[in-house]
Amino acid sequence: MRTRAAVALEAGKPLEVMDVNLEGPKEGEVLVEIKATGICHTDEFTLSGADPEGLFPAILGHEGAGVVVEVGPGVKNLKPGDHVIPLYTPECRECPSCLSQKTNLCTSIRGTQGQGLMPDGTSRFSMLDGTPILHYMGCSTFANHTVLPEIALAKIREDAPFDKVCYIGCGVTTGVGAVINTAQVEAGATAVVFGLGGIGLNVIQGLRLAGADMIIGVDLNNDKKEWGERFGMTHFVNPKEIGEDIVPYIVNMTKRRGDLIGGADYTFDCTGNTTVMRQALECSHRGWGQSIVIGVAAAGAEISTRPFQLVTGRVWKGTAFGGARGRTDVPKIVDWYMEGKIEIDPMITHTLSLDDINKGFDLMHEGKSIRSVVVY
Amino acid sequence: MRTRAAVALEAGKPLEVMDVNLEGPKEGEVLVEIKATGICHTDEFTLSGADPEGLFPAILGHEGAGVVVEVGPGVKNLKPGDHVIPLYTPECRECPSCLSQKTNLCTSIRGTQGQGLMPDGTSRFSMLDGTPILHYMGCSTFANHTVLPEIALAKIREDAPFDKVCYIGCGVTTGVGAVINTAQVEAGATAVVFGLGGIGLNVIQGLRLAGADMIIGVDLNNDKKEWGERFGMTHFVNPKEIGEDIVPYIVNMTKRRGDLIGGADYTFDCTGNTTVMRQALECSHRGWGQSIVIGVAAAGAEISTRPFQLVTGRVWKGTAFGGARGRTDVPKIVDWYMEGKIEIDPMITHTLSLDDINKGFDLMHEGKSIRSVVVY
Ligand SMILES: NC(=O)c1ccc[n+]([C@@H]2O[C@H](COP(=O)([O-])OP(=O)(O)OC[C@H]3O[C@@H](n4cnc5c(N)ncnc54)[C@H](O)[C@@H]3O)[C@@H](O)[C@H]2O)c1
Ligand SMILES: NC(=O)c1ccc[n+]([C@@H]2O[C@H](COP(=O)([O-])OP(=O)(O)OC[C@H]3O[C@@H](n4cnc5c(N)ncnc54)[C@H](O)[C@@H]3O)[C@@H](O)[C@H]2O)c1
Ligand SMILES: [Zn+2]
Ligand SMILES: [Zn+2]
Ligand SMILES: [Zn+2]
Ligand SMILES: [Zn+2]
Repeated sequence: MRTRAAVALEAGKPLEVMDVNLEGPKEGEVLVEIKATGICHTDEFTLSGADPEGLFPAILGHEGAGVVVEVGPGVKNLKPGDHVIPLYTPECRECPSCLSQKTNLCTSIRGTQGQGLMPDGTSRFSMLDGTPILHYMGCSTFANHTVLPEIALAKIREDAPFDKVCYIGCGVTTGVGAVINTAQVEAGATAVVFGLGGIGLNVIQGLRLAGADMIIGVDLNNDKKEWGERFGMTHFVNPKEIGEDIVPYIVNMTKRRGDLIGGADYTFDCTGNTTVMRQALECSHRGWGQSIVIGVAAAGAEISTRPFQLVTGRVWKGTAFGGARGRTDVPKIVDWYMEGKIEIDPMITHTLSLDDINKGFDLMHEGKSIRSVVVY
Repeated sequence: MRTRAAVALEAGKPLEVMDVNLEGPKEGEVLVEIKATGICHTDEFTLSGADPEGLFPAILGHEGAGVVVEVGPGVKNLKPGDHVIPLYTPECRECPSCLSQKTNLCTSIRGTQGQGLMPDGTSRFSMLDGTPILHYMGCSTFANHTVLPEIALAKIREDAPFDKVCYIGCGVTTGVGAVINTAQVEAGATAVVFGLGGIGLNVIQGLRLAGADMIIGVDLNNDKKEWGERFGMTHFVNPKEIGEDIVPYIVNMTKRRGDLIGGADYTFDCTGNTTVMRQALECSHRGWGQSIVIGVAAAGAEISTRPFQLVTGRVWKGTAFGGARGRTDVPKIVDWYMEGKIEIDPMITHTLSLDDINKGFDLMHEGKSIRSVVVY
């Protein structure tokens, strides 16, 4: 069949919207009509050329929602008409990682996915002249129709609006999941969120959901204060305005009654800046503070600290896709949205047509959007 | 009273054995006759001058066992004749850290202890000419008699031999506790121990106790192979002899049936070398591997890695005193020793008199001892 897609022809160039060929689903695969897709920093990281593993030409996009159109042979759990969210972290429930019950990082199709291919080692997309086009993160939601393995689709309720729940395909789950699954924050905790972009705001609402007492947001941009407060932030800090180093400042701010030393129970890096990652670790509480890296750093950048920080009880962790097992957890997060336990609508600041997708990247560069969503 | 002690007069000089004055116990304090003390790397770190927080003159030693001689006013849980192990990490059961139930790092007397003083801000030791001598790590077990706060003494059973269980005051608890309390290793796990000194061997026996399946020991010194095997090590690796980088080597070695990627469930640094700490993290399993820093690094040395290591699910932790709450856990470890669940005797390679204490440091420098113990 033919479908319309925004194609990344090469690094550093705008996407080109065009008709492309799409082969039908093979064994275990599913053809999905994408109804809406968010534009995430990871798409921009790859499109810019900064991602050393970026491959071209490819159809980017990994934050979508849509409807099953056709299923290939052997597909057991999905049928045409089902509403789905594509998963860049699949959940096969059979590989050693899935069976370990200790991680969401399913390895069943990791090799081919990293090469921009379906599990059989080929691509379903091509140009009208026959040139193959690669898949991206196993999703390629910047195409109106796409093919995915069944294990990379979460079935969701049919009353959920596509143009909102597509954001659960990456940003919402990453932020909320980092709190619920990775850090397992308990009620009454103190927490610091570095970087109040889309990810940081979702961490904040995850902390509100978990019942955290003190939710400190840190950003260089004062406009983020209002944004953070909207989702549950209790205190805002702009590191440029405090006149001292951020680490002692936060340590002091989080000192509890009777405690000689301060520090937050949980800290989250949502900036991708390795200096901030270190600050986040070091302002967590001696003895039990946990610091969670969410941001994706520039290629080759490293984090450092004195090992004494760890020996005295701080824990350094990270999270990918919020530690969520996609087929199990994503439908649950959709329910939370529908029940009003979490918010999404105010974070979708811009809605665009596919033809205008490059405007979405411009808005991101200008820092004007929290999330832009393309509606097909 | 007068007692005999090995005094560290200044950094980089041998200890001097002499008579010193010791004041009796004040409010909440206890006078203990030390019967035996181990000589630990931390004593040597301070004595050498490498410890930026080292203070002189001081009576070092923090790995002892002895008998209560006299208790000061207000002491509730100890009486003359009780057998005790001094705790450099006290357990007050009242400070925010103790009450958190999340850490063993009691903060009740941290300030004065770091200054070499008793909680009231003074020292009980002095030279015969009156010059004050500082306490060390709140213990000063290189004196035949010493004074400690009640909260820094674990009461142990009376049939336990002092010249063996003194080692529980630091090395045994640090190594075994890192496995049991900090990593909480489960039966069937795979683990790697970097550095097979006293700490590493105790980690190995902790892993055996926890039922780990694969216990890989890594050391540059082939003599350590036999030592490791004695306590439960199943595989030995000398990084100089494998002809490739240690990280991929271990990752490959720990690959389980059916798993595409390898890596150990738990890794432990027992070297204090920051390059090794990084290797230990990076050879832990994607998705769930935990790496525990036990070694104490040189002043100012830093650990580094790519944040991707954490984002893909590895956890970087550390441990002090094996995460043990001294008054609660140390008596339990003494029981484990008496019941034969853990071994100590073969690790005590040398027994010395106080007059020969400097030989203990020489043996350590020459790498000839696992543990030297001074018996009074
Ligand atoms: N781990 C995962 O699974 C995952 C998934 C999606 C995105 N991410 C990553 O999360 C990060 C955040 O994404 P986003 O969409 O929220 O980005 P964003 O650019 O919208 O937000 C980043 C925020 O950080 C602030 N900031 C920058 N430098 C700062 C500093 N030094 N101190 C304090 N604040 C600072 C900026 O002002 C901005 O508000 C990115 O690195 C992205 O790649 C990770
Ligand atoms: N965290 C704590 O509470 C705590 C308590 C006590 C001791 N420690 C620290 O634990 C560390 C180990 O103490 P120990 O008494 O066992 O020391 P040790 O010197 O007896 O043993 C260290 C071992 O590491 C080996 N080694 C050195 N470099 C290596 C390398 N690059 N690769 C592999 N092996 C290497 C040596 O050959 C030796 O066998 C020290 O740093 C000590 O200060 C920490
Ligand atoms: Zn994303
Ligand atoms: Zn899987
Ligand atoms: Zn010690
Ligand atoms: Zn305490």
